Amino acid sequence: MFGARFLARALRSCSSAPCPGHRPPARLSVRDALGAQSTSGERVKVQGWIRSVRSQKEVLFLHINDGSSLESLQVVADSSFDNRELAFGSSVEVQGQLVKSPSKKQNMELKAEKIEVVGNCDATDNGFVHIHTPIITSNDCEGAGELFQVEPSSKIKMPEENFFNVPAFLTVSGQLHLEVMSGAFTQVFTFGPTFRAENSQSRRHLAEFYMVEAEISFVESLQDLMQVMEGLFKTATMMVLSNCPEDVELCHKFIAPGQKERLEHMLKNNFLIISYTEAVEILKQSSQNFTFTPEWGVDLHTEHEKYLVKHCGNIPVFVINYPLALKPFYMRDNEDGPQHTVAAVDLLVPGVGELFGGSLREERYHFLEQRLARSGLTETYQWYLDLRRFGSVPHGGFGMGFERYLQCILGIDNIKDVIPFPRFTHSCIL
Amino acid sequence: MFGARFLARALRSCSSAPCPGHRPPARLSVRDALGAQSTSGERVKVQGWIRSVRSQKEVLFLHINDGSSLESLQVVADSSFDNRELAFGSSVEVQGQLVKSPSKKQNMELKAEKIEVVGNCDATDNGFVHIHTPIITSNDCEGAGELFQVEPSSKIKMPEENFFNVPAFLTVSGQLHLEVMSGAFTQVFTFGPTFRAENSQSRRHLAEFYMVEAEISFVESLQDLMQVMEGLFKTATMMVLSNCPEDVELCHKFIAPGQKERLEHMLKNNFLIISYTEAVEILKQSSQNFTFTPEWGVDLHTEHEKYLVKHCGNIPVFVINYPLALKPFYMRDNEDGPQHTVAAVDLLVPGVGELFGGSLREERYHFLEQRLARSGLTETYQWYLDLRRFGSVPHGGFGMGFERYLQCILGIDNIKDVIPFPRFTHSCIL
Repeated sequence: MFGARFLARALRSCSSAPCPGHRPPARLSVRDALGAQSTSGERVKVQGWIRSVRSQKEVLFLHINDGSSLESLQVVADSSFDNRELAFGSSVEVQGQLVKSPSKKQNMELKAEKIEVVGNCDATDNGFVHIHTPIITSNDCEGAGELFQVEPSSKIKMPEENFFNVPAFLTVSGQLHLEVMSGAFTQVFTFGPTFRAENSQSRRHLAEFYMVEAEISFVESLQDLMQVMEGLFKTATMMVLSNCPEDVELCHKFIAPGQKERLEHMLKNNFLIISYTEAVEILKQSSQNFTFTPEWGVDLHTEHEKYLVKHCGNIPVFVINYPLALKPFYMRDNEDGPQHTVAAVDLLVPGVGELFGGSLREERYHFLEQRLARSGLTETYQWYLDLRRFGSVPHGGFGMGFERYLQCILGIDNIKDVIPFPRFTHSCIL
Repeated sequence: MFGARFLARALRSCSSAPCPGHRPPARLSVRDALGAQSTSGERVKVQGWIRSVRSQKEVLFLHINDGSSLESLQVVADSSFDNRELAFGSSVEVQGQLVKSPSKKQNMELKAEKIEVVGNCDATDNGFVHIHTPIITSNDCEGAGELFQVEPSSKIKMPEENFFNVPAFLTVSGQLHLEVMSGAFTQVFTFGPTFRAENSQSRRHLAEFYMVEAEISFVESLQDLMQVMEGLFKTATMMVLSNCPEDVELCHKFIAPGQKERLEHMLKNNFLIISYTEAVEILKQSSQNFTFTPEWGVDLHTEHEKYLVKHCGNIPVFVINYPLALKPFYMRDNEDGPQHTVAAVDLLVPGVGELFGGSLREERYHFLEQRLARSGLTETYQWYLDLRRFGSVPHGGFGMGFERYLQCILGIDNIKDVIPFPRFTHSCIL
């Protein structure tokens, strides 16, 4: 049954092109292939990642990039090479003849005689279900930060008569709604606008911004969460680089020179992990003069976050296990001491500081009950507590600020430059 | 160069499986193939649409459906058959041997000897660029309908001190923002939440709902717009039916018996077109007792819309050219008479009534200037008028209510049942 397939494969790797005997083909970088002057008909080998695929009736075009050049190498192949695995982001090794390109777009192109997929790039959803969490909500989530309240414009002066019977706010996070849904779909995510009524005109804050948030049931350690976070950052970035290389290169070339190398440095290294306690020690031992003195039990400021990333060689770094007193009621108690912490995690990245925030959630009924009672929130969050009464599971999740992510990969300094209609204090144009 | 490909093709259509001579294979429906009792080894032919693809290292699994059965037929093929064109929604003709399936999930499966793609299903974005239009906006769009106003909760009682300096509202439509972006990207769309502070508890309204909105530059006729609208409805529905047939079938079987046939009726017919004036005539000549008497110059009510769809044999119907006096300032003047109309279009569908609304936009500076002046909106919409001063083009667009779309294809009567966290007057749970 499989005979035809193996025969076809054999034929592919030895097509009608002249066969140059047994000498192994010379390995060329994309840069060298593009700059080649002679076309002696010798076979060469190029390795890299697929940046675009154009599949026509008789011919298959691939663009391959290996980071040696901003430009990609065009590979021209017989359509019998076409294969589902030749997709954006897959890594390949192509052997063939380097020839003058008939197109003016490039000098040389590679006529493929053999294409081998080294690593697949299967862009699946990893089993996450997309949930539309609501914008208008009656819960004020963390009880922290300034909220926007919502009323019909005709009623704005009589807020005692609420349209929804209760005060209603613009969401600051879809987390609690995702926790509800993760109790049915196991792995869920949302991607939508969130809101903060903070009086800030900084380069890091917007009143309306986008978040990717994920919630995962049956997660028992921060390690599991961090793996998903690092995977999301790296996969999304690879996809962006594959799908719109020109746009990214425009930013890297004209707005943020050197950003391409900084980004590659982030992608090729494993992200680091330090505890909040270690982070505070590092900051204390630093010779830098911080505006805010670092101290255990106090939140990290942006200046601290940026210092920590630099200290870690400009590799993104996870900071874990924050003081319980600093974090909201739903984060899981580490039951440690004497410095009492929760299983929280932030990811700090070069240039931006905090990009992700996440935690294991307190899934234990009695722990959560006590935390709510201590915060005076028992009545408001009765429904949330009930989630721990019926089929509770260990779970956790995180959120990533989408505009900050764009700042990080594009190297753009002001958050207002990565969103088409920025909203902030004193400004809501159009 | 192409020799290998043709040889491979020839090998594929005559694999190592026993070749049954020249007799043409019998054509079977999916229903008949699934119900077959004997496995005489005879070759058969099945035609249908691909509902799922699972590509493994050595084997390719396809599920094929032709509408004769809720269940799909599993096709098992050598992975040498694998091909980019074998995708969700492609139509195929498969020849091979019908055999007992080793799996308990189905009785029979088809061992493929030949797979021919009849029609490709290339799910591209048709060149539309996705724009995130803002939720908070300082324009009240149509000046129509009740708006939600937004202020920091701490300031809700002193609305004279606006957070954004100006009154800010939750968006009722991304149209005007899309019009800005269509001046740079030609074809744009948005998909996000929109809001109405209507005091309604009907089965058709939500305070927070999703809209797909599109805006297209260089469009000169309603005909062009309607083609995109019909294409969106049909393609999206085919994709839903391909990607999650079990979910749809669950609704059709247990909630809305007969809906499957009603939906197929919509998909296989060309949508109809009548003018508003014709629609009013049809309603006037009807023997039905309407709560609201139909009359030229008055808006169509849901009862009218539902009657019109029934009158059109339950095929979706576009109603075009509405009275100018009924429609907002931005819709294009048809310059007709004595009954003055604008180039507006609504799509009415069975069960739901209005599903899409759209129009050509008034791109002529002086026409728009006069309409704004007559409505007393010149100052507020100066920026919008300016879009007609710098590189104005004929353009148009539309919006589709997403929850109503789900109601329409699933046959679900109450709009609150197709959204996870419904918001409406007196209710904002969680």
